[in-house]
Amino acid sequence: MTSRPLRPDAEPVFVLVRPQMGENIGAAARAMWNFGLSRMRLVAPRDGWPNPRAVAMASGAGRVLEGATLHSDLPSALADRTRVYATTARPRDMTKPVYTPEAAARDMAERAGRGEPTAVIFGPERAGLENDDVVLANAIVTVDVNPAFPSLNVAQCVLLMAYEWRRATHRVTPVDEGLAGAAWATGAEIEHLARHYEERLEAAGYFWPEHRATSMKRALRNLWSRMPLTGEDVRLLHGILRQMVRWAGRGGRVEGGRADD
Amino acid sequence: MTSRPLRPDAEPVFVLVRPQMGENIGAAARAMWNFGLSRMRLVAPRDGWPNPRAVAMASGAGRVLEGATLHSDLPSALADRTRVYATTARPRDMTKPVYTPEAAARDMAERAGRGEPTAVIFGPERAGLENDDVVLANAIVTVDVNPAFPSLNVAQCVLLMAYEWRRATHRVTPVDEGLAGAAWATGAEIEHLARHYEERLEAAGYFWPEHRATSMKRALRNLWSRMPLTGEDVRLLHGILRQMVRWAGRGGRVEGGRADD
Repeated sequence: MTSRPLRPDAEPVFVLVRPQMGENIGAAARAMWNFGLSRMRLVAPRDGWPNPRAVAMASGAGRVLEGATLHSDLPSALADRTRVYATTARPRDMTKPVYTPEAAARDMAERAGRGEPTAVIFGPERAGLENDDVVLANAIVTVDVNPAFPSLNVAQCVLLMAYEWRRATHRVTPVDEGLAGAAWATGAEIEHLARHYEERLEAAGYFWPEHRATSMKRALRNLWSRMPLTGEDVRLLHGILRQMVRWAGRGGRVEGGRADD
Repeated sequence: MTSRPLRPDAEPVFVLVRPQMGENIGAAARAMWNFGLSRMRLVAPRDGWPNPRAVAMASGAGRVLEGATLHSDLPSALADRTRVYATTARPRDMTKPVYTPEAAARDMAERAGRGEPTAVIFGPERAGLENDDVVLANAIVTVDVNPAFPSLNVAQCVLLMAYEWRRATHRVTPVDEGLAGAAWATGAEIEHLARHYEERLEAAGYFWPEHRATSMKRALRNLWSRMPLTGEDVRLLHGILRQMVRWAGRGGRVEGGRADD
């Protein structure tokens, strides 16, 4: 994982406009901090500020609330910003570019990287942003949701934008092989495994009837090569076979513990 | 927006393993249904099932809970699945591929499109999935979070996976120009606007001093062409100028209302 570090003041501010429930302000703070964002601004929160319910909900992300600034209206919260994105659920009859969260985050990250001060604004719980708020933004962000159930709450919307901000600013390998210290089995290891099984299974009378022996051996070879086996896995499979051979040698009786490899 | 329809039974199932709080089950149901997913399975929920708190929280997404199936253990919840993704916050010392949510959703959508029955499993609130759960999965999904504050709750994790599922199965234009019925101004409209302003501003004595007139006109031309103006915007700018000209013609006195264009 490599990250593209930004100057701390290049981080976007997330502006909650007229938020109603303290719990949602706290949940939004958590969602921001989950993805490394910490600059929150609050415009006219319904229940005043500070809000103890917000603090209780934010547990662990209290620093976001402590650093939050309070504003009486949206223009003052955006006074130092040059690029503003308004999150809206429903389409507005307004000529303004509409971004997906991913495209908005990429655009924002590019601009932040050039030193542009950016902001994302989020509306109150029930009705969302008013058109008079949205006209202050340079662009709209809309999450593509199930049209039959489009209601995302403000903290969920903050979570998705913060998640996309992190994706736009941190490069993560999409699929990590997750070897946990192991290494893939080499060709020689697979060959040795295949021969070991062939020899022992031949002795055990597995390749029967005779005319099917070749295709049975081929199926087994194909199984070994198709599996993503590590060297560990190969040793485990050798161990299983050795134990079965010893067990057979004792006439199928259990004696003592597991035979060591 | 075009969608790639899947057979309804190709939709992944989301399995909540030993969930604790009913509220979180309800919030998970909402998050699924926000992104069009409706197949939930529950393994040994702590407070039994059905759970009135889950129903209260799920408001609007009750159909997800009504359709949820109850299982006593994880293997029985996965009995009909061929591809399983385990969501984990912390790395496990286990050889297993680790996907980002986006890569997992794409992999899942491809497989679902081929008819493979898939599942995503989510652990309980406090500790997440146990290693004995994770070994049952084909792959791990980990959200890249702020290492200083990695705690995503189960409903947030469900939200991100459901969001990525929708992104993987629905194509949305990243940036829509959002013309709201308008059309971009044509070259002729911009040329006409530029000449209108040049003529009137010439008459008003704006291009002064003389030796700067050319560069001032060029700056104005560049402004018009650099702005993403619609035909509507151009008509509005003509209207402003006409009104100022009429006002000047009255010697700067307000008389009657706005002059029509």
